[in-house]
Amino acid sequence: MTRAVLFDEDRPLRLSTGATLAPVEVDFETYGRLDDDRANAVVVCHALTGDARAADWWSTLVGPGKPLDTDRFFVICANLLGGCQGTTGPSSIDPGTGQAYGLRFPLLHMRDLVAVHRALVAHLGIERLHAAVGGSLGGMQILQWALDHPGEIERAVVICASARLTAMNTGFTAAARAAIMRDPDFHGGDYAAHGTVPETGLIVARMMAHLTYMSEEALRRKFDRERRVPGAPMSFADDFEVEHYLTHQGEVFPARFDALSYLYLTRVMDYFAPFEDAGLELAAVDTAFQLLSFDTDWRFGTDHSEFIAGELRAGGVAVEQEEIASPWGHDSFLLEVPAYQEAVARFLDAPAAARRVADPGSPAV
Amino acid sequence: MTRAVLFDEDRPLRLSTGATLAPVEVDFETYGRLDDDRANAVVVCHALTGDARAADWWSTLVGPGKPLDTDRFFVICANLLGGCQGTTGPSSIDPGTGQAYGLRFPLLHMRDLVAVHRALVAHLGIERLHAAVGGSLGGMQILQWALDHPGEIERAVVICASARLTAMNTGFTAAARAAIMRDPDFHGGDYAAHGTVPETGLIVARMMAHLTYMSEEALRRKFDRERRVPGAPMSFADDFEVEHYLTHQGEVFPARFDALSYLYLTRVMDYFAPFEDAGLELAAVDTAFQLLSFDTDWRFGTDHSEFIAGELRAGGVAVEQEEIASPWGHDSFLLEVPAYQEAVARFLDAPAAARRVADPGSPAV
Repeated sequence: MTRAVLFDEDRPLRLSTGATLAPVEVDFETYGRLDDDRANAVVVCHALTGDARAADWWSTLVGPGKPLDTDRFFVICANLLGGCQGTTGPSSIDPGTGQAYGLRFPLLHMRDLVAVHRALVAHLGIERLHAAVGGSLGGMQILQWALDHPGEIERAVVICASARLTAMNTGFTAAARAAIMRDPDFHGGDYAAHGTVPETGLIVARMMAHLTYMSEEALRRKFDRERRVPGAPMSFADDFEVEHYLTHQGEVFPARFDALSYLYLTRVMDYFAPFEDAGLELAAVDTAFQLLSFDTDWRFGTDHSEFIAGELRAGGVAVEQEEIASPWGHDSFLLEVPAYQEAVARFLDAPAAARRVADPGSPAV
Repeated sequence: MTRAVLFDEDRPLRLSTGATLAPVEVDFETYGRLDDDRANAVVVCHALTGDARAADWWSTLVGPGKPLDTDRFFVICANLLGGCQGTTGPSSIDPGTGQAYGLRFPLLHMRDLVAVHRALVAHLGIERLHAAVGGSLGGMQILQWALDHPGEIERAVVICASARLTAMNTGFTAAARAAIMRDPDFHGGDYAAHGTVPETGLIVARMMAHLTYMSEEALRRKFDRERRVPGAPMSFADDFEVEHYLTHQGEVFPARFDALSYLYLTRVMDYFAPFEDAGLELAAVDTAFQLLSFDTDWRFGTDHSEFIAGELRAGGVAVEQEEIASPWGHDSFLLEVPAYQEAVARFLDAPAAARRVADPGSPAV
């Protein structure tokens, strides 16, 4: 892991809201070697609770001989702005007070996350990316980046992302935030100063969110109605295997993720609606897009990818959109699904020519 | 509202687990007049957070001229055992201690809820019901009753119920229970003695559960991405209308529902699997069943009704099963959906003849 100070008091990060933030430190990981012509860089953007160690959590895609082949590509992955893995976020120390920012940390837009990624890429001396790849929130960052900054991303692989959360999606993020913010240990966001962690809120938020990452079919295959101790009397403990699993997922969460980051990053997603931006200029976008979704994903399913594809095609952008069969729901993007890994590998290897559609009104390639 | 003491120290309620409970008081409501031949009684069983006032919460079905026509039927609805609206439940006073039972209240099975309904019907001098009608948990009670007690229910209307919760279903009830039981104000179930209410847990449980009662389409129609104050800056308040709605649904919940009842009644559903009972004798069942579901219900959708119908038909029981189109998800059973109200009215008016299928192996009527 490497740390870089990308913005400081003299050159603060100017956020979409107009607020400024400094310093902004970024923790990032790289894999492979940057070619002499600096043309083999691929940025990976992580999802809500991911981190920079892409080869660990995305071992199905990133590594030697994998679709993001680290023998060929120089893969860069940075911890997100607003996150809690080393990059500046709401639980970082505010230099103005010497205390954690808490809810005084500025609210973020997807563009702010992108600004930090771009600063990192520039810091590494790279002008143009062979590709950018991300799932869920990671895919949304890449979409925003490609829309706003023509010439920087040759190929964008946007996996089970959304450009317009549904009311159901925002309902679930709202319930998760309520669990965190109503936890008495949250202390209005100043839990660090109180020496507490809103553990209950984080556990409940994670249990609920985890269900939305899985499919009925995935849960049936893994657990169905299996009891932990067959024949044991009914209780309010984790009698069913699915309960035990969710409890475990919840209970390990507070040690690896921060409550304030959960609030800030889910809010970024709620507000993400790039095709509603007045300043959007699709005519300038020259990235070739691959949009992938999974048939059992009920969080950001194929309808979300189709919406993105439709908007891009209407603007003359070259889009390849594919729904992949997988029983595992939204989580499929992290898992071994051969048709998916093959699709990504193929797209990354193909020439990124003809990135604009000749006649924007006609069906796109 | 009428109260009856149906079980007392001399004649306690013997529960499925072998435990006994006394006293058991039941609050119930009746509508209409019982005919001289006592043949026009219809029992309504309410769902998780419902109550005995069926004509209030089920005004789409119960009332003069409605499908459960109170000018013709004598409609009976009782608050559930284990609930919190007057019928004995875990927050009732344990006569042995003078304190609320809390988690010392015995765990319940669907059969125990049925035992109390049956005692009430006997108390009213009724031997046979023209029909029993219920949605969700209410439908499950009726299914259990009809399976166990031939000759008592002529027609069973079982609406968006399940006879086998999925791992996803139980995952959501588990997350809701976690929110309640991990709330520091829960005090191991003895919150009454501490003068507290686990409000946060109840609010979060309700927000989450409420989402599962609605459909993507319902939420889109009602709220889509509408903001409370268009153009207002981003915040962690209820910026989106859907957030405001869920917060409201959550915040009014603790005043009308009890945390312990939530635990006990959701657990009844998790364990409900009547077709797995070794003692089940489908050959004796003589109730005519109507199974209704809604196409956008993702909590207990048509696959749940089809499972029940398949099991009943395999046992030679007469089943009419229908999926009704409605955009409103699981909540549809409470709402005005003309095809649904018409189906119930028709079934309740039809002769309940030929309740057994001649050849149990063949497709049923």
